[in-house]
Amino acid sequence: MKKIYIIGVGLIGGSIAKDIKHLNPEITIFGIDTNDAHLEDALALKIIDKKAEFTDVKYADAVILTIPVDTAVAVLPKVLDLVHDNALVMEAGSTKVAICKAVENHPKRRNFLATHPIAGTEFSGPKAALAGLFQGKTNIICEVEKTAFQLQERALSIFKIMGMRIRYMNPEAHDKHIAYVSHLSHISAFMLGKTVMEKEKNERDIFDMAGSGFASTVRLAKSSPNMWTPIFKQNKTNVIETLDEYIQNLIMFKAYLETDSFEEIHKEMSDTNHIKDILNGIA
Amino acid sequence: MKKIYIIGVGLIGGSIAKDIKHLNPEITIFGIDTNDAHLEDALALKIIDKKAEFTDVKYADAVILTIPVDTAVAVLPKVLDLVHDNALVMEAGSTKVAICKAVENHPKRRNFLATHPIAGTEFSGPKAALAGLFQGKTNIICEVEKTAFQLQERALSIFKIMGMRIRYMNPEAHDKHIAYVSHLSHISAFMLGKTVMEKEKNERDIFDMAGSGFASTVRLAKSSPNMWTPIFKQNKTNVIETLDEYIQNLIMFKAYLETDSFEEIHKEMSDTNHIKDILNGIA
Repeated sequence: MKKIYIIGVGLIGGSIAKDIKHLNPEITIFGIDTNDAHLEDALALKIIDKKAEFTDVKYADAVILTIPVDTAVAVLPKVLDLVHDNALVMEAGSTKVAICKAVENHPKRRNFLATHPIAGTEFSGPKAALAGLFQGKTNIICEVEKTAFQLQERALSIFKIMGMRIRYMNPEAHDKHIAYVSHLSHISAFMLGKTVMEKEKNERDIFDMAGSGFASTVRLAKSSPNMWTPIFKQNKTNVIETLDEYIQNLIMFKAYLETDSFEEIHKEMSDTNHIKDILNGIA
Repeated sequence: MKKIYIIGVGLIGGSIAKDIKHLNPEITIFGIDTNDAHLEDALALKIIDKKAEFTDVKYADAVILTIPVDTAVAVLPKVLDLVHDNALVMEAGSTKVAICKAVENHPKRRNFLATHPIAGTEFSGPKAALAGLFQGKTNIICEVEKTAFQLQERALSIFKIMGMRIRYMNPEAHDKHIAYVSHLSHISAFMLGKTVMEKEKNERDIFDMAGSGFASTVRLAKSSPNMWTPIFKQNKTNVIETLDEYIQNLIMFKAYLETDSFEEIHKEMSDTNHIKDILNGIA
């Protein structure tokens, strides 16, 4: 591999570029972005070696799409149209059903690998890119059998550089489970932030009372609406299901409070404490 | 001050002891706890200098109660009964109305200062105690005018050692606002943890998919049910109000999803993004 093109040089694309460049300085990283300020930042930060135009992907050994999932669905087929027969094309969004569907009958389907490297922060843009962001994290690969074997190997060599653990899953299972362990957390944080800000909007001193617990619980409410709106749109059915169950549990908790059922409240919390064991190992 | 007694040598009491001891090694710290294993741990970790019995508080220059808020309401009057006329007695729980009410007519009310040092972690017990936990954090003091001036000064000297910022507030305002910025976050995290664990209980591999975002959002679900059940009980009315508003916001978000109102969803998230500015400065 000599030339890797990254479409969307933000938090995720920039962090991938940093890892590849750090360990494979001989690879040239090209950046493509509709936001020219991001491209300039990425150049200045040496995240990418060169700027490129969209049609330049025809020269790529690998193309990595790290753009909002609605744009990815539109752009991916065009990338496949352009790339040469031995190019690897990957996409890294937080939903997988729509993207796999968008290229299921594409003549170059075997050039594509659907991935979801599960890592990030609440920040966005190339300035938020971090070397080592993916170290030890999980990368979900979907429909691996549809990708040319040689290109799977090329992809795995990149993920090895990034230090990722690989898990294989079908797109439907991915979207269903990720709704629980990721998408719901974002809604929970956004609505918690909204609830507190609405109530306290005229009393900013009140936030002096907010400790690290609140900061941790609402952290994801800093996330990018441009990235997250299309995720909720594509994964609407699953997200509604998780949200329904979450709301039911909150209503149950409130009913326990209203009926002074404090033994039940204690039990609910004790039972949920087991999440300690489950989360061991997650940063 | 020569002798400080800490009742409840856990995360908070232990962390206070560490800070005092570190900067004032000439002070002797006595530990009182109904859990003898915690006392032994605290001794072994040099968090306290000596174990003591409850009635020993009569020798104290200062007594600090760091026990669950229901126990505090029962124990505080007994401490005041025992202490000498110049002793400072403080309590550090997450609710302030009930504790202030419990001693409003006590003959030694002027010996008491109601405080809420807003710091902590999701862990508990003396092994979880951390030096410097309170550095730069906020300490809410309630009904300061009811405490003897000389004892206020003694308390402030301790908080200065701990590096805390002081805010004054009445107990009702404290309990109302803390419901938003702390108690609600805990319920949100506990019910998020419950929702995901219920769904995924037979698929533990799924938690490989959970990233740092999920870990951050459910972190508080590791908190102690023994500490939190009495907090929710004492602050029931305020907590129900916050929970109601949170549930309404989640129902609204779900309705936006169901009606494909993605512009509204984008706007909600954009508006809530301003929490970035508000949270600046909170760890």
